[in-house]
Amino acid sequence: MSWTVDEVMTRQVVTVRPATPYKELVALMSRHAIGALPVVDLVDSDGRLVGMVSGTDLLAKERAAAGARRASRARAEQAKAHAETAGELMTSPVVTARAGDALARAARIMHRARVRHLPVVDATGRLVGILSRGDLLKPYLRSDESIRHEVATEVLGRLMDLPPDAVEVSVDEGLVTLRGELETSSAGDVAVRLASAVEGVVGVRNRLGYRLDASDPRMPPLPGARGLPAAEWGR
Amino acid sequence: MSWTVDEVMTRQVVTVRPATPYKELVALMSRHAIGALPVVDLVDSDGRLVGMVSGTDLLAKERAAAGARRASRARAEQAKAHAETAGELMTSPVVTARAGDALARAARIMHRARVRHLPVVDATGRLVGILSRGDLLKPYLRSDESIRHEVATEVLGRLMDLPPDAVEVSVDEGLVTLRGELETSSAGDVAVRLASAVEGVVGVRNRLGYRLDASDPRMPPLPGARGLPAAEWGR
Repeated sequence: MSWTVDEVMTRQVVTVRPATPYKELVALMSRHAIGALPVVDLVDSDGRLVGMVSGTDLLAKERAAAGARRASRARAEQAKAHAETAGELMTSPVVTARAGDALARAARIMHRARVRHLPVVDATGRLVGILSRGDLLKPYLRSDESIRHEVATEVLGRLMDLPPDAVEVSVDEGLVTLRGELETSSAGDVAVRLASAVEGVVGVRNRLGYRLDASDPRMPPLPGARGLPAAEWGR
Repeated sequence: MSWTVDEVMTRQVVTVRPATPYKELVALMSRHAIGALPVVDLVDSDGRLVGMVSGTDLLAKERAAAGARRASRARAEQAKAHAETAGELMTSPVVTARAGDALARAARIMHRARVRHLPVVDATGRLVGILSRGDLLKPYLRSDESIRHEVATEVLGRLMDLPPDAVEVSVDEGLVTLRGELETSSAGDVAVRLASAVEGVVGVRNRLGYRLDASDPRMPPLPGARGLPAAEWGR
């Protein structure tokens, strides 16, 4: 249920070559309103990612040229003062993610490397997409239909093994409503908890009825009434 | 299991009053490196939130003063050209969140209103915190111990109703490992799926053993072998 990088990354990526000149880098970033450009080596024709040029890299050149200096990264910045091409300005080696990585893994990599854009590569090091910090927010904004589908098929169908017509699921602005009849209220509790954990869900309204009422004093205590029936799988 | 606004919001908020002058707004944003200032009315002494001043609001004044003009929002910007105080520059009424809102709800509000900072208010309209876009990423970056605790107590304990010593949970850089022995492999599948859905989890390694082997031909078919035992709660 947790999302992976390839579900939110941008696949159409503006790339440059190591020889791309400084002014073209600035123009590309400005025209496409992007914060980082992957540098791809096409010389050996396999399109391997060799570095990243970010707005910060370009600013380093500007700052150094203006005589400004910062204590940290001073040496790297100084080298970039006279840089004329992407190959000289870029940060390399690059931290990358894989398409199948969990978003949480990619977020940790970005946080640690202090980057806002993470190139995504395949097993051979070829660029397949780019992940921005904004992409990490997409799970919060997914469509109602996408949420409804996951709750119905994954949570109720696959995880809880309920028949398709047992519970009706509707979603409005991320708010999930469950209607139908289950055996016990503990099953309803589990359905609500699981649905709440689905990405993008704002809340869950429980409109379920139960055939067995646990509060009825004539009822024998249910096994595992606090949650799932423990006797079925516990030890 | 889904996070709420008060779990990630900033509680120490730099606020201004309606009468705070333009230059002080600029100085405050710069000094604290923040992008928006809530405007709080202290005149009637209950500290109600009355507006927000963002960097964009300040730029509107700068742009208008420089004679620049944009088609959209032109009238509002023009009014701000001569504004001298927070009360004149602020955006009002303000879109807000409540402390108990799901992060997904707050994210939708921010996305729709196109704001990067959302003030959080209590039932009486008093400011209790501020939520930035960066705060929405915190669930991805939570600590291993926090993840371990939720998997052990919430998933295995409360949802699956397993005894505390049935499964050992360890977490390393968001990667969860489950060790122990359960009754059936379908229970293990459910534990893995539920743990995967916990915020911040990068992946789940299944090191569980099972007392009953479903692939053993001498075994009778288990009820609901695809997931949870349907007979317990389905219809």
